[in-house]
Amino acid sequence: MEKKIGQLKAILAEISDLSNAAALLDWDQQTYMPPGGAEARGNQMALLGRLVHERATSSKLGKLLDELKPYAASLDPDSDDARLVKVTARGYEKAVRVPTKHVVEFSLATTLGQQAWVEARAKSDFSIFRPHLEKIVPLRQEYASFFPNFEHPYDALLDDFEPNMKTADVKAIFDDLRPRQVELIQAIARQPQVDDSFLHQPFDEKKQWDFGVQVITRFGYDWNCGRQDKAPHPFTTSFGIRDVRITTRVAPGFINSMLFGTMHECGHALYGQGVAPELDRTSLEGGASLAVHESQSRMWENLVGRSFPFWQYFYPRLQETFPQLAAVPLEKFYKGINKVQPSLIRVEADEATYNLHIMLRLEMEIAMLEGKVEVKELPALWNARMKEYLGVTPPNDAQGVLQDIHWSGGSIGYFSTYALGNLVSVQLWEKINQDIPDLQEQIRQGKFEALLDWLRQKIHRHGGKFEPQELVQKVTGSRIDPAPYLRYLTKKYSEIYHL
Amino acid sequence: MEKKIGQLKAILAEISDLSNAAALLDWDQQTYMPPGGAEARGNQMALLGRLVHERATSSKLGKLLDELKPYAASLDPDSDDARLVKVTARGYEKAVRVPTKHVVEFSLATTLGQQAWVEARAKSDFSIFRPHLEKIVPLRQEYASFFPNFEHPYDALLDDFEPNMKTADVKAIFDDLRPRQVELIQAIARQPQVDDSFLHQPFDEKKQWDFGVQVITRFGYDWNCGRQDKAPHPFTTSFGIRDVRITTRVAPGFINSMLFGTMHECGHALYGQGVAPELDRTSLEGGASLAVHESQSRMWENLVGRSFPFWQYFYPRLQETFPQLAAVPLEKFYKGINKVQPSLIRVEADEATYNLHIMLRLEMEIAMLEGKVEVKELPALWNARMKEYLGVTPPNDAQGVLQDIHWSGGSIGYFSTYALGNLVSVQLWEKINQDIPDLQEQIRQGKFEALLDWLRQKIHRHGGKFEPQELVQKVTGSRIDPAPYLRYLTKKYSEIYHL
Repeated sequence: MEKKIGQLKAILAEISDLSNAAALLDWDQQTYMPPGGAEARGNQMALLGRLVHERATSSKLGKLLDELKPYAASLDPDSDDARLVKVTARGYEKAVRVPTKHVVEFSLATTLGQQAWVEARAKSDFSIFRPHLEKIVPLRQEYASFFPNFEHPYDALLDDFEPNMKTADVKAIFDDLRPRQVELIQAIARQPQVDDSFLHQPFDEKKQWDFGVQVITRFGYDWNCGRQDKAPHPFTTSFGIRDVRITTRVAPGFINSMLFGTMHECGHALYGQGVAPELDRTSLEGGASLAVHESQSRMWENLVGRSFPFWQYFYPRLQETFPQLAAVPLEKFYKGINKVQPSLIRVEADEATYNLHIMLRLEMEIAMLEGKVEVKELPALWNARMKEYLGVTPPNDAQGVLQDIHWSGGSIGYFSTYALGNLVSVQLWEKINQDIPDLQEQIRQGKFEALLDWLRQKIHRHGGKFEPQELVQKVTGSRIDPAPYLRYLTKKYSEIYHL
Repeated sequence: MEKKIGQLKAILAEISDLSNAAALLDWDQQTYMPPGGAEARGNQMALLGRLVHERATSSKLGKLLDELKPYAASLDPDSDDARLVKVTARGYEKAVRVPTKHVVEFSLATTLGQQAWVEARAKSDFSIFRPHLEKIVPLRQEYASFFPNFEHPYDALLDDFEPNMKTADVKAIFDDLRPRQVELIQAIARQPQVDDSFLHQPFDEKKQWDFGVQVITRFGYDWNCGRQDKAPHPFTTSFGIRDVRITTRVAPGFINSMLFGTMHECGHALYGQGVAPELDRTSLEGGASLAVHESQSRMWENLVGRSFPFWQYFYPRLQETFPQLAAVPLEKFYKGINKVQPSLIRVEADEATYNLHIMLRLEMEIAMLEGKVEVKELPALWNARMKEYLGVTPPNDAQGVLQDIHWSGGSIGYFSTYALGNLVSVQLWEKINQDIPDLQEQIRQGKFEALLDWLRQKIHRHGGKFEPQELVQKVTGSRIDPAPYLRYLTKKYSEIYHL
């Protein structure tokens, strides 16, 4: 069986190497590739994708997994090898249910869909994107139909991002969250608004960049195993656990983009850099799920980076870098970066309103999959819900239903992981603050070693060994739960807005 | 047969896509990759290399080529399809003669060899590199033994870089060249030396970069289909004909590195960008040979970039960028950038002495392959030859036998292509100046469109359709010939040094 495990690892190493090569092609496409390179890049990525798919669905892999399952069952169920067989088998069994014909059709529809979306958003014209989405939605329905064992079609899609997470669970969490989060926002809206005008002024781009680097270096980002580049839509990617790269965006007239974007991506990257070396080049080399990944990025961005102790340490340094902030006191700065303001664009939303953007999308995705909403109805429905949940109405579709790339790439089922990540981040945060009682004081001193070490031990090193609910349960003692998040939001904003 | 040509092209497109993906991985490794990424990158590149090799030696490809040969023979022999079958068959027939075992051994030996060479050069300690080269040389001899049809073992190696070029031809060319080039250098040495001290002073790095960009933009480098980055050892690479990238090095205290390095790499890139679109994603998408490629880089670097008319246009602009040159007259600047000074390092050698560096290496390579020189004898032999040919003796092996990476990567047979490229560049140059009688005047006005257009039509668009000797013959009416180069050097340096 040792030999068979070795054979399995050899196949997985090849899949990993191909996937990581493809990830580099994608990184380059989003950072440095000249426009002329796009067509060739598409061909190269399609080929690598096909080679990965062939290997991930090969009968050789299937046979090996069948042979290994009894052996894996005899091991400690939490051992690397037992988990490797389990997680790999899980992925294999899903992948082989999808006919190659569907994979090809989906790939084509989403490639064209993304191109059309770019144009549609630029022109704020939903009609350009509509026929593409009208192909993508039935393809996603068809995909779900390959998995009749799932209760709800959305389950099959969500499961690809959040292993074993059920639509019913997500709905229950959101149903609990929505009214209370709406209530909080309304309470805030009745209070005088905080001033954040000082965040909107010219900030030297090079100095912004350097400040971000200074922050994440203190967080513990390992520059020997990563780098930062600029990208229009920041992301984190990795080509093995010793090459985990981040990207950021620097807006010359608004410091928040760089500041919180850099910390956010660093949170993802610290996860990637912290996976145990033994899991490298296997199906466990990634994180537990998108939500768990997002819990890490949101923790460093919000729970650390938008906290008062953090700025007690960093604000004097920021003021030194940007003397135009000299006259803005720390308390005012802190309130400014935490301003709550219902707005149109998800990626720019504050902590208090963010989840409502997600809930709106989740509801629309479920309705589309269930066939209860047609694609052509989306723009009007979007605007109505925005008004209902956030009190704002998009003036056009570019700032409404066309703002996100996800649906054009077929990523229906993805959005909810963002909101779940917020919830998980606070569940972990409560536990961390129990385990490290002086954490806030450490942060006040710019010290993050104990925090990172905790995350490394409890979350990062496990890579993809555990399912998200399982991991959260293991670490915090309960499943994904909105209560800590609501407590956190309520306490934070009660102070800032004197509720 | 149309269908079979289509099948051939599908296989070649896949090989091209994989090779271009591997090229991007290599580009990244040489420009941006953090140190931690090296091991994973090695695995990824080895895998892509294996996938290319499998496809390039598949029996399916062999069968297809056999079926297509009679058809190709019925076509115009210069047509794309006829050449495609011919060139692909040529590569296939070579590749299948090499056992996979050898490919793997060679790959391992050169990976380790390159690592050892880096350390050996840093420590100037040949003994670190010696055992590796003692493995690589026999592997190259073994490689040559797979091709008993070649007269000389060096032929088999050279043929990979210069299709159908024979060692005897190269030797004859160099035997003709060596005494006359030595004589020229000695004549120069008897004259008063020119002053180039003004080239060695601080030059702002950003301004250097921008000036280089300005120059190659005028040359016609297409930024929509390429970009420039920094690399410790500048190179040009491509991932398809619409993504051809260059790299450069900027030395803060010596402007020549950036200036002539940038023009050199641009010369390669203009070739890559000029290949006919119909040849993209086939075995004809590259250039005719390394020597023909080098003829392009050397032309733009030397025949254009180190010429008087070029600087009549650009020197006022350079002086504006760098006011510290204001007091240096054009004539003095021109002589300074063309200073002849026998020196230790090939890549820093001037036009007059460069080829002697190559001849020295060629002789040593041939002697090694013939078994007439042992690896352990190389350092002493190197130093003796340097003294004999150039009158200088390396103070250590880092500046002597360890200076070049080529042997550590198994690239024995490569060096001669540099010298051949110099010769070809001037053969083409003579023809161009006949075809465009006012070319020098155009250059004086900073106009390069006619020159680039000539190169596009005569050289670039053909990609790899023609063998180097064939192409040179086709364009200039004679085979590769050292006479024009000697004429050029003699005339140029007679003027500069008043011989």
